[in-house]
Amino acid sequence: MNINIKECAQILKKKNNILILTHAHPDGDTLGSGFALCRALMKLGKKARVINDDEIPKKYNYLYDDLKFKDFKEEFVIAVDVATENLLGALQDEYRGKTDICIDHHLTNTDYAAKTLLCDVPATCEIIYKLILELGAEIDKKTADCLYTGLSTDTGCFRYASTTSQSYRIAADLIDLGADNGFINRAMFETKTKSYVMLERLALNGLKLYCGDKVAVIKVTQDMYRKTGSNEQETEALAPLTRQIEGVQIGITMREKKDKTCKASIRTFEVNAAQLAKCFGGGGHSQAAACRFDCTINEAEKLIVEKCGEFLL
Amino acid sequence: MNINIKECAQILKKKNNILILTHAHPDGDTLGSGFALCRALMKLGKKARVINDDEIPKKYNYLYDDLKFKDFKEEFVIAVDVATENLLGALQDEYRGKTDICIDHHLTNTDYAAKTLLCDVPATCEIIYKLILELGAEIDKKTADCLYTGLSTDTGCFRYASTTSQSYRIAADLIDLGADNGFINRAMFETKTKSYVMLERLALNGLKLYCGDKVAVIKVTQDMYRKTGSNEQETEALAPLTRQIEGVQIGITMREKKDKTCKASIRTFEVNAAQLAKCFGGGGHSQAAACRFDCTINEAEKLIVEKCGEFLL
Repeated sequence: MNINIKECAQILKKKNNILILTHAHPDGDTLGSGFALCRALMKLGKKARVINDDEIPKKYNYLYDDLKFKDFKEEFVIAVDVATENLLGALQDEYRGKTDICIDHHLTNTDYAAKTLLCDVPATCEIIYKLILELGAEIDKKTADCLYTGLSTDTGCFRYASTTSQSYRIAADLIDLGADNGFINRAMFETKTKSYVMLERLALNGLKLYCGDKVAVIKVTQDMYRKTGSNEQETEALAPLTRQIEGVQIGITMREKKDKTCKASIRTFEVNAAQLAKCFGGGGHSQAAACRFDCTINEAEKLIVEKCGEFLL
Repeated sequence: MNINIKECAQILKKKNNILILTHAHPDGDTLGSGFALCRALMKLGKKARVINDDEIPKKYNYLYDDLKFKDFKEEFVIAVDVATENLLGALQDEYRGKTDICIDHHLTNTDYAAKTLLCDVPATCEIIYKLILELGAEIDKKTADCLYTGLSTDTGCFRYASTTSQSYRIAADLIDLGADNGFINRAMFETKTKSYVMLERLALNGLKLYCGDKVAVIKVTQDMYRKTGSNEQETEALAPLTRQIEGVQIGITMREKKDKTCKASIRTFEVNAAQLAKCFGGGGHSQAAACRFDCTINEAEKLIVEKCGEFLL
């Protein structure tokens, strides 16, 4: 059942001992949403905590380094920025079918929760911001940091075409409330580990152009991780690089898994990335999608490049 | 003499046949400011045009592709985003000492114009936006595009610490007025030529770390331009890459000139880049500065790396 922000706030006002679920391989929007909502609920005198299936990358420490969670048995479960239950990772074992409210901005949300607050905005943090205003909870500096983080990371630091004037206005409000935009954007966008820099170098060295230079492919192998001390977690920043090349319509980043199968991340502007990914059982958004292959990285490269021909403009 | 926005608007209302000077090696802020102001003046029924010493890079075509300039003998000269007359390039020959009003956001402005409208904001376009409101001229879609371009490029797409809540709010207003933020940010930040990508690859291959990995140096040689078909104009995007590496306090990009001398671009966060550049007769801002060397690129690298030791935190 779909609910709006007002209805969601009315429900939350009556609840206590609230558990907030975030998606596996957490990003700035799921964590920013989770910790901002958690802080707001605590300001209202409620017990709340945020959980995640994975270890939270160190760069997000500032989102929660001051929080002390009290132990409690959860009575109400909220999922934030989680489009499908599969994205909960191992948390599914305990919480499948148990989400009371899901707050999300993915239009592909599978409606798995008892109630869903879904808005078509660039970041779930935009919804959380409005929800906190509706709840009447104070937005302190740390809450503003959390909300700004989600807004900035899900819009590529306000760069993507999906960013609206509302996103910019909320960012302005959050800065006025104390969000440290300089620190956050430096941590999110301007800091690369040495091992990542070495990996990027190796990967770019192998960049290949196909289909009259309209398709760009980079491959990341297990051997590259070994040589650079990097790992798969660090490869997220690679994918957007492929479509930045003038004339490239489809950018593909292939990642070799430990079991020698592989995953392809597809980035486009005009070509529908989700439809291309769908040909191989994958999915995603129109400009960013992914799919898996049960074959070697070189075989997969051949398959996907062949398919690209049908999608080029 | 310093004037404020209101005073500037009052003066401009009375003038006609206005020439707008922009700085050499033009960027989004000088061009966006120039063409936005020009459009506003034309909306008020005045004759105006924008000139630049250099050929304007093709990616800025959309700022003025619809404008038809009428010929006129200038009666009033405005410089926008031009901190010193030297930055006018060859336009100095004709216009040195002839600027009636300079509109700028560089606190290092040398006060060369008869009147100066100087504000400490992240982009000159922020001043021009307020000036146009004060002039009462319509801001149409193309004017909004111009203003958004300057705002976005001078803030690193709203990423730099200097970006204020006012910058975000003006961006929101401009999007509501029709600015195509998706198109502009893609053109400014997400489009690399093939030759640039090849150059970046070569340059990153030669990345060296010094002083316990606190100093990163990349070198761009004439040989690299030959090998990649790239040129010096395309090296701007390289400099920020050096300071992105975790632990790096000083990032240096060395560029070899045709005459075998070279130039160093320095990028930092906490270390004062301008002071380091000053040791070699250069200058700039606290996080971005540059200096020249009358020696080979390898000799210059040695000199500057030695000096870095004194500046590390």
